[in-house]
Amino acid sequence: MFGRTYYCGEVTETAIGEKIVLKGWVQKRRDLGGLIFIDLRDRTGIVQIVFNPELSPEALALAEKIRNEYVLDIEGTVVARGEGTVNENLKTGKIEVHADNVTILNEAKTPPFIIDDKTDVSEDVRLKYRYLDLRRPVMAETFKMRHQVTKAIRNFLDDEGFIDVETPILTKSTPEGARDYLVPSRVHPGEFYALPQSPQIFKQLLMVGGMDRYYQIARCFRDEDLRADRQPEFTQIDIEMSFMSQEDIISLMENLMTKIMKDVKGLEVETPFRRMSYREAMARFGSDKPDTRFAMELTDLSEIVKGSSFKVFAGAISSGGQVKAINVKNGAGSYSRKDIDALTEFVSVYGAKGLAWLKAEEEGLKGPIAKFVTEEEQAGIKAALSVETGDLILFVADKKSVVADALGALRLKLGKELNLIDHSKFNFLWVTDWPLLEYDEEDGRYYAAHHPFTMPAREDLALLDSNPGEVKAQAYDLVLNGYELGGGSLRIFERDVQEKMFEVLGFTKEEAEEQFGFLLEAFDYGTPPHGGIALGLDRLVMLLTGRTNLRDTIAFPKTASASCVLTDAPGEVSSAQLNDLHLALNLKDQ
Amino acid sequence: MFGRTYYCGEVTETAIGEKIVLKGWVQKRRDLGGLIFIDLRDRTGIVQIVFNPELSPEALALAEKIRNEYVLDIEGTVVARGEGTVNENLKTGKIEVHADNVTILNEAKTPPFIIDDKTDVSEDVRLKYRYLDLRRPVMAETFKMRHQVTKAIRNFLDDEGFIDVETPILTKSTPEGARDYLVPSRVHPGEFYALPQSPQIFKQLLMVGGMDRYYQIARCFRDEDLRADRQPEFTQIDIEMSFMSQEDIISLMENLMTKIMKDVKGLEVETPFRRMSYREAMARFGSDKPDTRFAMELTDLSEIVKGSSFKVFAGAISSGGQVKAINVKNGAGSYSRKDIDALTEFVSVYGAKGLAWLKAEEEGLKGPIAKFVTEEEQAGIKAALSVETGDLILFVADKKSVVADALGALRLKLGKELNLIDHSKFNFLWVTDWPLLEYDEEDGRYYAAHHPFTMPAREDLALLDSNPGEVKAQAYDLVLNGYELGGGSLRIFERDVQEKMFEVLGFTKEEAEEQFGFLLEAFDYGTPPHGGIALGLDRLVMLLTGRTNLRDTIAFPKTASASCVLTDAPGEVSSAQLNDLHLALNLKDQ
Repeated sequence: MFGRTYYCGEVTETAIGEKIVLKGWVQKRRDLGGLIFIDLRDRTGIVQIVFNPELSPEALALAEKIRNEYVLDIEGTVVARGEGTVNENLKTGKIEVHADNVTILNEAKTPPFIIDDKTDVSEDVRLKYRYLDLRRPVMAETFKMRHQVTKAIRNFLDDEGFIDVETPILTKSTPEGARDYLVPSRVHPGEFYALPQSPQIFKQLLMVGGMDRYYQIARCFRDEDLRADRQPEFTQIDIEMSFMSQEDIISLMENLMTKIMKDVKGLEVETPFRRMSYREAMARFGSDKPDTRFAMELTDLSEIVKGSSFKVFAGAISSGGQVKAINVKNGAGSYSRKDIDALTEFVSVYGAKGLAWLKAEEEGLKGPIAKFVTEEEQAGIKAALSVETGDLILFVADKKSVVADALGALRLKLGKELNLIDHSKFNFLWVTDWPLLEYDEEDGRYYAAHHPFTMPAREDLALLDSNPGEVKAQAYDLVLNGYELGGGSLRIFERDVQEKMFEVLGFTKEEAEEQFGFLLEAFDYGTPPHGGIALGLDRLVMLLTGRTNLRDTIAFPKTASASCVLTDAPGEVSSAQLNDLHLALNLKDQ
Repeated sequence: MFGRTYYCGEVTETAIGEKIVLKGWVQKRRDLGGLIFIDLRDRTGIVQIVFNPELSPEALALAEKIRNEYVLDIEGTVVARGEGTVNENLKTGKIEVHADNVTILNEAKTPPFIIDDKTDVSEDVRLKYRYLDLRRPVMAETFKMRHQVTKAIRNFLDDEGFIDVETPILTKSTPEGARDYLVPSRVHPGEFYALPQSPQIFKQLLMVGGMDRYYQIARCFRDEDLRADRQPEFTQIDIEMSFMSQEDIISLMENLMTKIMKDVKGLEVETPFRRMSYREAMARFGSDKPDTRFAMELTDLSEIVKGSSFKVFAGAISSGGQVKAINVKNGAGSYSRKDIDALTEFVSVYGAKGLAWLKAEEEGLKGPIAKFVTEEEQAGIKAALSVETGDLILFVADKKSVVADALGALRLKLGKELNLIDHSKFNFLWVTDWPLLEYDEEDGRYYAAHHPFTMPAREDLALLDSNPGEVKAQAYDLVLNGYELGGGSLRIFERDVQEKMFEVLGFTKEEAEEQFGFLLEAFDYGTPPHGGIALGLDRLVMLLTGRTNLRDTIAFPKTASASCVLTDAPGEVSSAQLNDLHLALNLKDQ
């Protein structure tokens, strides 16, 4: 048995006449007029093998035993296909390989699903047999592209002088934000490590350590209830640098994304990327991560309808809220009363108490609320929303946050339903000028909008005492097609500012010292100004490969209940293991 | 304030006359005749800044406040140094920077130790202030080199068609080998994930999945009692490939190491690397990872002394043991009786009951046992060990494993003491033909010498039933200068062989099914022949940087008690966190 000379997908006309050796899996076997045809597959593609009684009766006899997914070693000669048999859809479609010799390297049972891009098998079955799922060409392509993405990132950052440094996975539990995964210590009874939610503190300490430019493609962990686009472990492109302004960092990241798009997708991306303040994004798109591939923007009609006899409008405005609307172009015919009832149901999830609507007909705006709308208001609405005959106008009147959430979500839903999104577009967008803090009504305290190490805008420092909610952060999020790719900020590098930040977040001096004393102390020894960014690799790969399921970008993902159905993790452990860790189960609430 | 135009260590004569901007830390300040000189440091090196009252009295005034480790922004002009003031030891020693302007970006307290390559501060203090320790040039260099090593590895493997795939960190506990770190599940009460000791099973499943060539620079975890060269988390260069022979893999790995040595050290390494069977390594060096940079090999004298009147020799041989010796060239004068007593003490740790010795004098071999050694035996010993006048011969007579361990360790100790090791050498060595299994007397069972997925030599398969201890593995370890860099093997890819292996390891059918059922099932669906290797990155970096402490190659390492003294991990967690995880502490044994 000889070594492979070609991958299956790479045998083309240039190899005609060559004796070659292939290794691969049987995609399909057909018997035809005394010949046997096999499509042999590896990660690069498929090539047709022909078994011919005149060439090798032994090989033909063996080929009769061969079933789908058998692993074969093939020795043969590359031959041009006859006129009528060329397959233009296949890179190898102009040739076939006439087999001199075949060795069955391993047999295969009939797989539980067909190895093909199109599959209707449930995701659970795909995950249980992930090793078969990965053989599907679309999956092989996804992981090749994931590799190309990380390669482009590394090459770019290497060239820019960044140093790849590994930070610990076994680290300390921090109280802010999502839940930590904990790891009991055997050596220190009753104590626990935590898996990092991000390398944030370590990368800042590397800056204190003079590393100057750091990156890591870092595994991070969050023990949160999972949504479709969350995983308990995920991968972050983690970057930090010293002595750089926000503009420097943004520009560097634009060059990085440009390089990725060029290397991986062969696309030229225009820079600088579009920018929008957080306030503008919320106002125009009802989202802090707007999908700018289509319009249908939110329009504020509060000024126009503030005197409306429609109580819902007037009431919302007089109690400090808003009336905003979107114009569904040509939507009047597409949405019946019943359809609009369903949309009303949809926005109620976001807290909207109703969804008012008007259809633009030749004779004017029609609909249940039309009778409350004066001529003047009609004119104002039509002008503000550029209404033409056939349009459907959808209104939400409520407090600001509900208006934004409800109309923002409705806009996205309608954009998809009405096919308004150009899926060939990659719309990068920076969202800037974030609030530093968010007030939580329930807990009666402020939380860091990004994290507690984000630098406040210099000019807002005084507001930290008087009006913390108004303080802007020196923070920037990178958005792609309505997804948050990630976010970054300049960091606090002065002890007094960091102490003030902890104070505003409700830490006592003692708590701050106990949790973050080592960081505060580090600030005493010559900490440089620094900042950085963290981008979600899984999500980036999902968007670049055009997938819609984050799990398709991860080789061995967890299900929504954080299980691995392939290996059956998590699982029970022995009582000896628990004793070693000084633990007992506490299942009384079950 | 402008952006940096140069790194400190990169300002040379070519910049003379330029206005430049630097950012860095104050290494040293000297006041001299009305001028102030500052050595400014960043990760690239040091440059001299001069503050001159004629150029900028304001800058000079500010410079007076500056202390060590302050963070500065300097604008100035590059000027050639005067004749007598050139510093040939410094890359920037021919120039200095005359400061027009200085901004103090941050102040610094006096650090607990001086930022200098030479330091006598304890490692605990260095680890507590790791961010200061990392500023020492030798540390910055180590992490730059670590980055260069991973870059060389990635470039090589990329070019060879390997795909970087991430495997899970939250995975399943496996019973064999070292202790797993466990992670309690919040969603699945009483169940645990385990942190992987290696991605072994996942990389094999990737081969089943047709990935063909996989690599990952992978974090791995072992909850073992730590020795100087072990860390609870460590990094592994993890490689797996399909359809390759042991020779193919060895040759590819030699090319990888050659590339690393060339890219990182600028050294040409000869291939093929030296090879040695496990049996030969144990016989000649008393080690399965021999340091071949010096000789002093173990010589078997059993045939020569089997009839000796010295009871210790004759007895060891008649009870199935050995008598072996090393020749310490010119050692007779260097080791007094008292010194040899200390060596005897040293070998006793390895189970040796004594250390016999003879010194070669003009008149013949002398020493306490000389009277038992016949003329003929003397001649035989001298010939076997090429003894010359002035040599010291050290004997151990015991069972084989004790002879190997004791003399192997003694050889290494004497090699270091006598400066026999050429530290400029990088001696790569393959150790092959390992036993598949090791019998544990205490447990009365066999354990896998590497891991349970290692392919037995085809010709030894039948021995698995009759004489498992004699079965050879298709396994290979890569050794560098007496350190095991890592090991690999061809893997079992047939279900029946894997089942047999589990049986030999004492698994019942049910246990094998419960632990590894998913892997056995995968073997049913067309598993290709495959194999790979895993190399320790931390250790490789340690050897390439000439460090002797593994912790110096890890940015934030753990101490011998698996603690991080910087962040104080592990630590206590709240009872709410424990309740969430369905756990209670069980400290009754404390």
